[in-house]
Amino acid sequence: MSAITPRYLTGNTEGIKDFLDRFDVFLFDCDGVLWSGDHVFPGTAETLNMLRSKGKRVVFVTNNSTKSRKDYKKKLDGLQIPSTVEDIFSSSYSSAIYISRILQLPENKRKVFVLGETGIEQELASENIPYIGGTDPAYNREFKPEDYKLIAAGDSSLIDPEVGVVLAGLDFHVNYLKLALAYHYIRRGAVFLATNIDSTLPNTGTLFPGAGSISAPLIMMLGKEPVALGKPSQAMMDAIEGKFKFDRKRTCMVGDRVNTDIRFGIEGKLGGTLGVLTGVSTKDDILTGECRPLAYVDALSDLLAGK
Amino acid sequence: MSAITPRYLTGNTEGIKDFLDRFDVFLFDCDGVLWSGDHVFPGTAETLNMLRSKGKRVVFVTNNSTKSRKDYKKKLDGLQIPSTVEDIFSSSYSSAIYISRILQLPENKRKVFVLGETGIEQELASENIPYIGGTDPAYNREFKPEDYKLIAAGDSSLIDPEVGVVLAGLDFHVNYLKLALAYHYIRRGAVFLATNIDSTLPNTGTLFPGAGSISAPLIMMLGKEPVALGKPSQAMMDAIEGKFKFDRKRTCMVGDRVNTDIRFGIEGKLGGTLGVLTGVSTKDDILTGECRPLAYVDALSDLLAGK
Repeated sequence: MSAITPRYLTGNTEGIKDFLDRFDVFLFDCDGVLWSGDHVFPGTAETLNMLRSKGKRVVFVTNNSTKSRKDYKKKLDGLQIPSTVEDIFSSSYSSAIYISRILQLPENKRKVFVLGETGIEQELASENIPYIGGTDPAYNREFKPEDYKLIAAGDSSLIDPEVGVVLAGLDFHVNYLKLALAYHYIRRGAVFLATNIDSTLPNTGTLFPGAGSISAPLIMMLGKEPVALGKPSQAMMDAIEGKFKFDRKRTCMVGDRVNTDIRFGIEGKLGGTLGVLTGVSTKDDILTGECRPLAYVDALSDLLAGK
Repeated sequence: MSAITPRYLTGNTEGIKDFLDRFDVFLFDCDGVLWSGDHVFPGTAETLNMLRSKGKRVVFVTNNSTKSRKDYKKKLDGLQIPSTVEDIFSSSYSSAIYISRILQLPENKRKVFVLGETGIEQELASENIPYIGGTDPAYNREFKPEDYKLIAAGDSSLIDPEVGVVLAGLDFHVNYLKLALAYHYIRRGAVFLATNIDSTLPNTGTLFPGAGSISAPLIMMLGKEPVALGKPSQAMMDAIEGKFKFDRKRTCMVGDRVNTDIRFGIEGKLGGTLGVLTGVSTKDDILTGECRPLAYVDALSDLLAGK
């Protein structure tokens, strides 16, 4: 995509100052940039405060759909990272914004069938979008032989005619019934959305099924991909812009993964991208990969030299 | 694959006799050929009896993994179709045969982690293969935060070091815990098998998630396909041949789906394939598709003219 040679800024005070001067808004990926698991990298809060003291807007952009922005703020508080709910942009919020402000749903097709956790439900509620499924215990049950007939017949005990969207995120309570219902809603015309399609979820130094694993059966059955509302999908960038009205040329995306974070910034035609080496991608990925950032540092706190 | 013009045999008595004379063994797909749902096509039992009276071997080949061969015989009995357990070859049995007779597993890696129902468990037991998972209620529970750590650490309360195979079939009790465990077993070196990878399951005139929908999250996470033991995978043909020792040139596959049944017979280099128009594929699929049978009839019972 970009055959540039990323500029190495660690230890280059003038280079850092010049770089920071080019931007008014910094979009931050979180895990691998600000912290890893429950361990905050040294200097994270100081670096964010330095940027804010220079008048920069800081936005936290996360594909985590299981938490609402309020929940996520609690996490940031617990890690002693100063923030407000308005600084946070999650894939669940992105999905809610997309549904309420971008999708043009008919009046009688405004309900969302949710495969996911409470973070999604809270953000749908924050945009006054009606939903079913999700964490409702009524769906947390075995599939019964009579369900075949009820679903096939579109019986109102299981199929709500007002559902116009299926939104699939990370769902720790996924089951056969919910997959069967999601499939039938989409066949009946519902729009197929995913909060994000990361196939895996990092935890405890290894990987677990991610939100993409919840969409995967539906993609296979339908032969069709969802519109994804997380990085690197540009639907998320559009949603962020819809909310913050920033100047893309004066905005920089900061992240540790070249194929999601840096790609997200490049495809979004932002003025710049900054890679950090405290997460998934290696120096080799950054220097020779398909998606190369404009600049990179060993760690985010290296930017403090430019204060 | 084959640009032949399939021969239409309905009403052509001499053609039917010639065709039947070329084969000693007939492999039958069931749903769409012998019956549809709970409705047996007229003349099914008579046609099978006619073939047997001519000394032909009749084998029922099904991708349904949720039933054992014994369960399947009960279904055939209920539909008044004469059979013995030995006439039945299901994808669950195919998987058991493949594991016990073809895979060379080390002595301490002989356990199978099952994503699936009792049909798979019964067939593994019939080949004396130890298994865990499956219908064991211990796995029918919520994923808990401590599960991340236990799985990451390979704790013996959740990760059995003797598991050398993950076998994924249609599982009406699929959940996050089972998917996470299956993924970790494969990452730790277990062989990834699927009873079959049909994305959908026909029922009540519509479709529901099939066995392939259970493998789909694992395929997405691992970036790797399983060895499938159902049609049209040739691993199933090898397993059938391992059991029945038939002469492929004197064997005919009969089915309603060109892309699974007819493909299965063609790729297995059988002497012939016979399409029927009582199921999924249309006359157009048969005459102009990629996988064309050697011959076709409107309905299976049309063969009775050749008795």
